[in-house]
Amino acid sequence: MDDRLDHLRQALRDSDVGALLVGPSADLRYLVGYHALPLERLTMLVVPAAGEPLLVVPELEAPRAVDSGASQRVALAPWAETDDPIALVSGHLAASGVTGERLAVQDRLWSVFTLGLQAALPDASFVAGSEVMRRLRMIKTPEEVRALREVATAIDAVHAQVPSLLRAGRTEAEVGRDIAELILVDHDEINFIIVASGPNGASPHHETGERVLAPGDAVVVDIGGTRAGYCSDMTRNYVIGELPYGYEALHRVLEHAQDTAVRAVRPGVTAASIDAAAREVITDAGYGERFVHRTGHGIGIEEHEEPYIVAGNEELLAPGMAFSVEPGIYVPDRYGARIEDIVVVTDDGVEPLNLRPHEVVVCG
Amino acid sequence: MDDRLDHLRQALRDSDVGALLVGPSADLRYLVGYHALPLERLTMLVVPAAGEPLLVVPELEAPRAVDSGASQRVALAPWAETDDPIALVSGHLAASGVTGERLAVQDRLWSVFTLGLQAALPDASFVAGSEVMRRLRMIKTPEEVRALREVATAIDAVHAQVPSLLRAGRTEAEVGRDIAELILVDHDEINFIIVASGPNGASPHHETGERVLAPGDAVVVDIGGTRAGYCSDMTRNYVIGELPYGYEALHRVLEHAQDTAVRAVRPGVTAASIDAAAREVITDAGYGERFVHRTGHGIGIEEHEEPYIVAGNEELLAPGMAFSVEPGIYVPDRYGARIEDIVVVTDDGVEPLNLRPHEVVVCG
Repeated sequence: MDDRLDHLRQALRDSDVGALLVGPSADLRYLVGYHALPLERLTMLVVPAAGEPLLVVPELEAPRAVDSGASQRVALAPWAETDDPIALVSGHLAASGVTGERLAVQDRLWSVFTLGLQAALPDASFVAGSEVMRRLRMIKTPEEVRALREVATAIDAVHAQVPSLLRAGRTEAEVGRDIAELILVDHDEINFIIVASGPNGASPHHETGERVLAPGDAVVVDIGGTRAGYCSDMTRNYVIGELPYGYEALHRVLEHAQDTAVRAVRPGVTAASIDAAAREVITDAGYGERFVHRTGHGIGIEEHEEPYIVAGNEELLAPGMAFSVEPGIYVPDRYGARIEDIVVVTDDGVEPLNLRPHEVVVCG
Repeated sequence: MDDRLDHLRQALRDSDVGALLVGPSADLRYLVGYHALPLERLTMLVVPAAGEPLLVVPELEAPRAVDSGASQRVALAPWAETDDPIALVSGHLAASGVTGERLAVQDRLWSVFTLGLQAALPDASFVAGSEVMRRLRMIKTPEEVRALREVATAIDAVHAQVPSLLRAGRTEAEVGRDIAELILVDHDEINFIIVASGPNGASPHHETGERVLAPGDAVVVDIGGTRAGYCSDMTRNYVIGELPYGYEALHRVLEHAQDTAVRAVRPGVTAASIDAAAREVITDAGYGERFVHRTGHGIGIEEHEEPYIVAGNEELLAPGMAFSVEPGIYVPDRYGARIEDIVVVTDDGVEPLNLRPHEVVVCG
């Protein structure tokens, strides 16, 4: 972790940005290993392009910041309840010689803090922190790829057991609770559990609910967790008893589309081209209107991060990028299906991290 | 819920703000009942001071927005993966006659979206959404007070069972898992569980960990959850076997401070005066330096919201305000203690919602 701040300072100089200001976020964890609570009291890592970084923390959070090890990487500036933390931040910027320059604020910093910074630093202009952080976060080191491979193996093992949980008469929520236990066997945290049965499968972000599984239901199971700081995310499709009308052909198209997109992944092609590869197969089969979302998203210490695999994203894929390839087809009021694996761009192609078969599994 | 948008529009006009822009947040739940996922795809409720509100949602989230009932309250504007959602927002503002005015962005909106809005609307100035939302959220209706009373009763019932969980040899984490089950008996969600034993109690936001409870430990138990959309938050102090040296006197001071602060609550006094009431008792007893945080925070659909009970906050208390009163005393490397109840300001005084005794309970 210790060279990350150096890489960031280099990125700041390359981008002509005077400093990056980071609130509680994955970027803060990435840079100094501190998992701060996103609360109304300002926590902010100030990283000047030249000069020392400073972690501004509420006094009562200071012990947590110390426990995280962050205080071994950067100086801590605790503030008391009646102090003005924005003044602490702008004071450190001034002391570091940063005034009236371009300043980057972490993308997810609460707007109320950015508005406060803008008022305190009227001569500065503000840009999104991802402008400097995206490249650092997007290209995974070999250690990070290893962590993603391990968490992918963990979620593969959960999907291997899903068929034993699915039978007519159970609710989505009951199945979800069993999946939760299975995820925790080899993950530290559950990030999300989607069990979308029958017509619920037609909503890509359906919330697992009280619907009772019935024979002839297709069931989309999309699950993910965190293990050693890195995320899994994997979708497979199951059917209760018998395949509903039209579903087998649809699923075969989806398998072909997902496989085609994965095979298109290699360094030097655009993110958009992977989306196009999946979309072309689905459109040619007549389901184009039913594929209502992008083909994938980057993954790492967050479930969704760059690069996004979407039309219009001309980002060139490069070794070390990790993302989902997850085309879906959604038929309102009937069913949906989505196949999702995480893949990593290698020096000359692609390594899929999820290794379970893609075929629909008939259960119950 | 249906009059909340009307009240907001009135507040916008009173504050000379052209529109409020609300991303996924408690404010969005409060205004239209939609619990949106805070994702990189923009979800935004646009509420012009005059004109129709519009809920901009990613196309694939649209079914969830419909399910929430929000689409019965406001028109939905779904956007496809290759659309520009910021253009949708600024287009609706222009159509509503809002240009070049003061615009409010919800406090917790991701900065990347506010920066995008600032670029798209160069003639507008931006202010924090709490400027218009705070009053609406801060004054609870009788229905909201009822919900807070019910969830307070639910967490009272959990604390009643905590003594049976605390004994030497168990870890904080084991106790925390048992508390989790108890919270879920009469809450829908767990919000946080702090079990801070011995020296860990000296960190107000300690994370429940693997420390093993031992005789002579003081244990701070601070827990909260959500029931029917409203939050509980309650702290009591327990001791394993025997009171550690000096703890009894400290706890007696704390009881007196908490009681004094609660008795000071009534309409027309400042939030700061409640903080001062608690602090004076603790300072007079010689522990002033050990009370390192504010006395309390508002509570409602969020665990922490306005009004904050802190020095410098000259907000006048008014009937319907609900907040915690939670002084604490922290002795590094030895122990800490905090007593916390939620109270509501009534027409002529105060109603405490948590009713368990404040005395330290000797367990094990």
